[in-house]
Amino acid sequence: MKIIVVGGSGTIGKKVAGRLREHHDVVVAGRTSVELTVDISDSKSIERMFNETVNVDAVVCIAGEAKWAPLQSMEEEDFYFGIRSKLMGQVNLVRIGSASLNPGGSFTLTTGILADDPVVNATSPAMVNGAIHSFVRAATLELPEGQRINAVSAGLVEDSLDVYRDYFPGHNAIPMDKVANAYVKAIEGRMTGRVITIYDNQ
Amino acid sequence: MKIIVVGGSGTIGKKVAGRLREHHDVVVAGRTSVELTVDISDSKSIERMFNETVNVDAVVCIAGEAKWAPLQSMEEEDFYFGIRSKLMGQVNLVRIGSASLNPGGSFTLTTGILADDPVVNATSPAMVNGAIHSFVRAATLELPEGQRINAVSAGLVEDSLDVYRDYFPGHNAIPMDKVANAYVKAIEGRMTGRVITIYDNQ
Repeated sequence: MKIIVVGGSGTIGKKVAGRLREHHDVVVAGRTSVELTVDISDSKSIERMFNETVNVDAVVCIAGEAKWAPLQSMEEEDFYFGIRSKLMGQVNLVRIGSASLNPGGSFTLTTGILADDPVVNATSPAMVNGAIHSFVRAATLELPEGQRINAVSAGLVEDSLDVYRDYFPGHNAIPMDKVANAYVKAIEGRMTGRVITIYDNQ
Repeated sequence: MKIIVVGGSGTIGKKVAGRLREHHDVVVAGRTSVELTVDISDSKSIERMFNETVNVDAVVCIAGEAKWAPLQSMEEEDFYFGIRSKLMGQVNLVRIGSASLNPGGSFTLTTGILADDPVVNATSPAMVNGAIHSFVRAATLELPEGQRINAVSAGLVEDSLDVYRDYFPGHNAIPMDKVANAYVKAIEGRMTGRVITIYDNQ
């Protein structure tokens, strides 16, 4: 399969791209230092990416940001930062990419445990993740030509533990192999409309 | 309690406002023909509403719109219509209202079954509802002074059956009394961070 991994040079992205590369033709996309340049917060940039790339069987998105801050200090615009990036960035990838993705191709989006088990200062990332979960369940009813869509929602991943440990008090870290497996399962399997949760909750 | 019901003249809103009026001081807010004028898609309008109203114990929002259309015809701006109205309208009510709501006061937001059990043409309303569900779970961790927040997520309600039946094939209608009960439970009870689902699923 020919697979675009948007955000394929990030913490999770490079592990997923590495795993997929064992069996597939992987094109890493992102804002800088990648094979294919795209800024998902700009729908024109997404259009250019799909115009430059043909015969795509799978699109993986492990990109997009949202602001972390105390709710009482969050301005309206702070919420829109995450809406434009991690939320509408992923929605636009599907909306625009669907027209050129091969029949039977798949979209695999990325969310996270905050949708279901949030922590302090994460109202915006939680909101964005929950939005994508429901979008995935709805979009699968309408994608053309057997195209599929799923999301991977992991807890705090091992490779981010040093940076994010204090923001996720008492959360158990998720092994990177499990995370990469979830993307492989979504891409190589036949499931659609699923949110694959990789939580180790208490 | 003094309760602002935003959207209190709509299909669900008037039933909820009627029930709450039996025991509380209810102020109906909305865009037109109401006691208090507010357009929740405009955060300045929300600020004006809270500046004009003091000593509020509960804010109920049964307002906000999102576009219904086939995914393949949805433009980016079509998604932003729902984001500005039903999503950020409700987030802004909480973000702004929290500063003046009485200690122990509550926010009760409105979503709907599409978040969990979507239908065709509803990617945008589904997405918005799912966003609010996760926002509610996250915001409860940070609201000040014992303030509470919940959402009511109902299926197709009886009073909307004539208009929406064809959009929700095979969905069972939810009696209006059950819907009104959910708001009463959220406002008069002590729960917080809950999505009260009133689904009659198959």
